[in-house]
Amino acid sequence: MNLRLIDKDTVKANLTMARAIELMRDGFIALSAGEVDSPLRTALVNDAGTVLYKPAYSDVAGIFCAKVVSVFSDNVNKNLPVTPGIIIVNSAETGMPVALVEASYLTTLRTGAVTGLATDLMAADDAKTAALFGTGGQSAHQLEAMLCVRKFETIYVFSRNPENAVSFCSEQGALAEKSGCRLVANPDRSVIKQCDVITLATSSPTAVVADHELPANVHINAIGSLGPKRTEVASETMLRSYVCLDQRAACMAEAGEVCLIRDAGQLPENFYPVEIGELAAGRYEPPTTGIRVFKSVGNAVQDLVCTAEILKIAEEKSLGTQATL
Amino acid sequence: MNLRLIDKDTVKANLTMARAIELMRDGFIALSAGEVDSPLRTALVNDAGTVLYKPAYSDVAGIFCAKVVSVFSDNVNKNLPVTPGIIIVNSAETGMPVALVEASYLTTLRTGAVTGLATDLMAADDAKTAALFGTGGQSAHQLEAMLCVRKFETIYVFSRNPENAVSFCSEQGALAEKSGCRLVANPDRSVIKQCDVITLATSSPTAVVADHELPANVHINAIGSLGPKRTEVASETMLRSYVCLDQRAACMAEAGEVCLIRDAGQLPENFYPVEIGELAAGRYEPPTTGIRVFKSVGNAVQDLVCTAEILKIAEEKSLGTQATL
Repeated sequence: MNLRLIDKDTVKANLTMARAIELMRDGFIALSAGEVDSPLRTALVNDAGTVLYKPAYSDVAGIFCAKVVSVFSDNVNKNLPVTPGIIIVNSAETGMPVALVEASYLTTLRTGAVTGLATDLMAADDAKTAALFGTGGQSAHQLEAMLCVRKFETIYVFSRNPENAVSFCSEQGALAEKSGCRLVANPDRSVIKQCDVITLATSSPTAVVADHELPANVHINAIGSLGPKRTEVASETMLRSYVCLDQRAACMAEAGEVCLIRDAGQLPENFYPVEIGELAAGRYEPPTTGIRVFKSVGNAVQDLVCTAEILKIAEEKSLGTQATL
Repeated sequence: MNLRLIDKDTVKANLTMARAIELMRDGFIALSAGEVDSPLRTALVNDAGTVLYKPAYSDVAGIFCAKVVSVFSDNVNKNLPVTPGIIIVNSAETGMPVALVEASYLTTLRTGAVTGLATDLMAADDAKTAALFGTGGQSAHQLEAMLCVRKFETIYVFSRNPENAVSFCSEQGALAEKSGCRLVANPDRSVIKQCDVITLATSSPTAVVADHELPANVHINAIGSLGPKRTEVASETMLRSYVCLDQRAACMAEAGEVCLIRDAGQLPENFYPVEIGELAAGRYEPPTTGIRVFKSVGNAVQDLVCTAEILKIAEEKSLGTQATL
């Protein structure tokens, strides 16, 4: 049995954000069309942490893959990643295990890429100003994704800890500048009223931006806080917004943005948000004014299409190392 | 991220059947005591085959592990294994992926080992004569397991295809002889009446031995056919036997031996078979006469305890190869 081992640097060097956004388009169209088999993830838990197993298959991707990702918060004190992960790939033709891919870079890339897709589909074509909330592990790829799909002139960066926003802008400034965009750390919150796009990538359990702080027309990406009791978007905002989800079933189970209003009995009877795959397929047109919210809890199809792509490239260019088992 | 890769030869050279049987004892005691977390396996299916994901954890084993095993029947025409598999190990302390273990050898070893445990717990102490039905991929380890726990003088080997039984006896004869046992291929079926132990390791959808062919006192291991509509043991036999299962819930879902009589409305109201872990823990004493049946559909705890053991040995002796991801 021969396995190709593909490390983080190989993923980084061979899978661009622009390509990842295209892959999200294909992947979510397939997901909404019912062409992806991504059963519920399985979780194993002990006193120290959780290991999650997320398998997925689609004919389009042409591989079976399963992401095994752990969440061990105390790893931060051990100089180890808090969410280490690998992806195991099995051949669609023979079922043989064929590759292992380092998952952490790929995960933040694909989480950025779906924000890129949603922004491309839902934000004003001439969007110039954005805000990014959160400067953690997801944020660099969230920024890159926004820069990929619109010609932003200014992106405001907010963090609970203002020093983190300053560091982030200093680290990512060059990337933004290449796209003709300046980053501004810790501005006065009144600038939110000027934003065409707001991206929320925080771990906040409650709304990051109050409803009254929002402009009349804005596209919001909410990809941070996870769980049915946590939301980055205020309930008042959700109730007056056009809502798009990565997957209805998953968000109705795991996204506080919709679960909290449902559980409070506030959901309008005709609440039936679109899926990003339905927008991408052109089945629906999003509005061009008002508040639009895209919520993602993350889907195995994102790992599947990115893994299929990096594996194809690695096979063509003989990248990675070979292991025999 | 550093992974230890442990291949089939390393498993073979470092994990004996005798030790694997001890591990089954610990593993099934923990399982029946509710100390093993082994959620339902997840299956992904395409036109060519199935990939199964089976995760498990227990504090006793001290690792997280997930077996990824494929079933692609057409692989036989491609000179590839029909059920290739690997086991991914994550650390219980940090969640980090730490090892990959080739799974096919380990799987037949542990499937033999539970037969060894059941035979040790349920067969007559002075058992001298056995029958083995089936000479496929499982059978060598089924034979070795029986030889490990009793001083057999004769083991009769039956196969649908008599030539296979002859080949099997010729290949395994030396192993048996070391234990003072002779193998006899394709005897007249009347010898079944002399057997103290009968092990069924076939893919037969219906009873391999008719009820009237059985002796008055015998221990039967049934580890072959899988699925709620397939059985290796006749319903009449099941209804008059002392029944032990690897896990009640799993067998009530997947073992035709019990599902068929349940679905026919034949189960006695007080039907509550013991689990092998309950016998191993000494919670119940099996009878020493009459017909005893042990049915196994296979459990993730078997992979878990064997994987933990081989990993411990590999770490101590620096076995396997290192891969960086």
